[in-house]
Amino acid sequence: MEYKKNTLANGLDLIGEVNKSAKSAAVGFFVKTGSRDETEQINGVSHFLEHMVFKGTEKLSAIEVNEAFDRTGAQFNAFTSEEVTVFYAAVLPEYLLEVTKLWIDLMRPILRGEDFTIEKNVIKEEIAMYKDLPSFDVMDRCRSLHFEAHPCGKSVLGSVESIDGLTAEQMKDYFVTRYAPNNMVLACAGNFDWDQICSLVEAPCSRWQKQPVHRKLEHFGGSKKKQRLEKPNLQCEHLCLMSAGVSAQDPKRFSAFLLATIIGDNVGSRFYWELVDKALAETAVMQFGAMDGTGLLFSYIRCSSENTPKVLDTVTGIFDSLYKDGITKDELTKAKNKILSALVIKNELPMGRLVDLGFNWIYLKQYRTVEDDISDVRTVTVDDVNSLITQLKPGDFTQFSIGPAKSA
Amino acid sequence: MEYKKNTLANGLDLIGEVNKSAKSAAVGFFVKTGSRDETEQINGVSHFLEHMVFKGTEKLSAIEVNEAFDRTGAQFNAFTSEEVTVFYAAVLPEYLLEVTKLWIDLMRPILRGEDFTIEKNVIKEEIAMYKDLPSFDVMDRCRSLHFEAHPCGKSVLGSVESIDGLTAEQMKDYFVTRYAPNNMVLACAGNFDWDQICSLVEAPCSRWQKQPVHRKLEHFGGSKKKQRLEKPNLQCEHLCLMSAGVSAQDPKRFSAFLLATIIGDNVGSRFYWELVDKALAETAVMQFGAMDGTGLLFSYIRCSSENTPKVLDTVTGIFDSLYKDGITKDELTKAKNKILSALVIKNELPMGRLVDLGFNWIYLKQYRTVEDDISDVRTVTVDDVNSLITQLKPGDFTQFSIGPAKSA
Repeated sequence: MEYKKNTLANGLDLIGEVNKSAKSAAVGFFVKTGSRDETEQINGVSHFLEHMVFKGTEKLSAIEVNEAFDRTGAQFNAFTSEEVTVFYAAVLPEYLLEVTKLWIDLMRPILRGEDFTIEKNVIKEEIAMYKDLPSFDVMDRCRSLHFEAHPCGKSVLGSVESIDGLTAEQMKDYFVTRYAPNNMVLACAGNFDWDQICSLVEAPCSRWQKQPVHRKLEHFGGSKKKQRLEKPNLQCEHLCLMSAGVSAQDPKRFSAFLLATIIGDNVGSRFYWELVDKALAETAVMQFGAMDGTGLLFSYIRCSSENTPKVLDTVTGIFDSLYKDGITKDELTKAKNKILSALVIKNELPMGRLVDLGFNWIYLKQYRTVEDDISDVRTVTVDDVNSLITQLKPGDFTQFSIGPAKSA
Repeated sequence: MEYKKNTLANGLDLIGEVNKSAKSAAVGFFVKTGSRDETEQINGVSHFLEHMVFKGTEKLSAIEVNEAFDRTGAQFNAFTSEEVTVFYAAVLPEYLLEVTKLWIDLMRPILRGEDFTIEKNVIKEEIAMYKDLPSFDVMDRCRSLHFEAHPCGKSVLGSVESIDGLTAEQMKDYFVTRYAPNNMVLACAGNFDWDQICSLVEAPCSRWQKQPVHRKLEHFGGSKKKQRLEKPNLQCEHLCLMSAGVSAQDPKRFSAFLLATIIGDNVGSRFYWELVDKALAETAVMQFGAMDGTGLLFSYIRCSSENTPKVLDTVTGIFDSLYKDGITKDELTKAKNKILSALVIKNELPMGRLVDLGFNWIYLKQYRTVEDDISDVRTVTVDDVNSLITQLKPGDFTQFSIGPAKSA
């Protein structure tokens, strides 16, 4: 495993971790932009822009882009979150240069007016589709209820209204600042030649213009409000609970991962034994979301409507007992074993490694080996987790539920 | 890469592929049983039984089972399909023996009456939950419409009625026959010691009783019926199309994979260019499902209700043009590149390799290297795919749709 780094004069960072024994290679652009960087008026533009990137460049039509990916047989995709837009591909080693060249081209998309108009409909269909998924919809609505006016409350997809109102000009302006080289990183992992990547990148990416680019960072503890939405033909109740977590920069993030695993891993956690194993809920999980300057603990629970009051009582009981007695040593050991094996297995594949490389760079501007993470997980103590419980008060949550009409 | 095989006197096959350079190891029991092996009366028993396996053995309580998994930090799970029930785990190499020992114990579950009663509710909640997911529900209903009385039309989850009516006695009877050693295979992949696995398995598994066990195999071309279900609060139309495919044993299965990729891969396919790129549909994909003695080509399309007639016309146009002109050489080359890179990347991880090892054994009783599959994909010709189109007539499909009320 060899770590490599290079920075162009315009601020674009190139990072790589070479593993000559891998059978594949992965490459990706990580752009530090997402719905939290949008105003209300252009909400959804980051995700819409991610779609537009595939529509072509000055030299390449959308068909040619697609054909270029097809030639390499790449497993490729992109995703947009509240904070990051990522474009990635995993390929056989002999295709890495070709697919990297393609991503470089695509990072300067032409953003044609006709494509913008057609793609608006695709985005609106995607918004409609997610409204049909209560497990997704409840998280999105809870996030907005929790963060209120804080930038992290904005929906990644935007609303039909904001998408309808968006102009191609607004998207172009957003693009110029947010896709500036000093707001991006190109990462590679797996079996590849670093020098070849550097020479490929140098000329085209050096032409990209550095820009002044900022993100507002502010921690927010959450509104702690409760709301419920009725949807007549649903069969069960979907609940989302959100409370404050620590940030992606906070050294306590490893304790927070362990805490969420102890409370709400999909098996063997407190939620599992009290809710799922007792058949009160069909699913009950908690995750920790480390974010830029802030963070979330969020839970998703699905149960029958008649069980909901009992489920919420049980959840309160779980948090009360954590406040009173904390976690046990045995719980911590098991949570560590789970997180450590997941870490190693995920990072065994170049594509998994790429994501960790890129995210560590976006949030920390730091290269961390898998061993660094392993060691930080190992050193967390019972006291560390217990003092985090006292600090975060996870029982003090915002709650959104979607379920059938009460009369049903 | 070293292939290993051993068969116990009672017919239990042990297979393994050792890769000493892997950082993890994976192990799994593949049981050749699923909803197609059930009668109407006990529909859902295979999936219910998969849940019951985790409830413990004569010596282990459910809590002890869970704790045993937690100690190893395993990434473990199980799934049930129409044809196979699979229990698997991926771990760091030092935990493989421990987790294998645990699976061996669990393959002889105690099936306690109290657990059976509690778990019934969990299963019914799971049935309710999937009813809230139109993308899942439409596939399930289409499969049943397509296969009619053929065993493959049975829902994996069963119905609330069949689950309510199921007795613990019926489950035990089903278990004895279907989990017979001669109807299962234990597979290992990644970094492990084959001799240690063999000595671990020998004593406990040799006590399992061989049983006469059968599966009815019959190809079925499908009903070709059309049905629509209205759900008032849906935002969009969910369509499922199913037509006959070739079986998992048919050498033409590689041509069928290529055909489904050409027609309906999520990017760059005919569906993609005609439906998704033109913003007629939000999603339009086709997959090939190789099954025991039969097979399916199935498509899932999501679009707005007003676009549905145009979407169906376009689909008809795509199939007509395939009947008339067949596929192009260029389409075949691209589909091969995609399938080949997906194959290599999936099999790079022990967990991915395990699934292919196990399925090849269940369906073919054959060990196949990744290279065998690569070579079979490479040798498919344009004529092979075109004659498969003539044989299968994919435009002749069963259709199920779920969407909002027409008046909306």
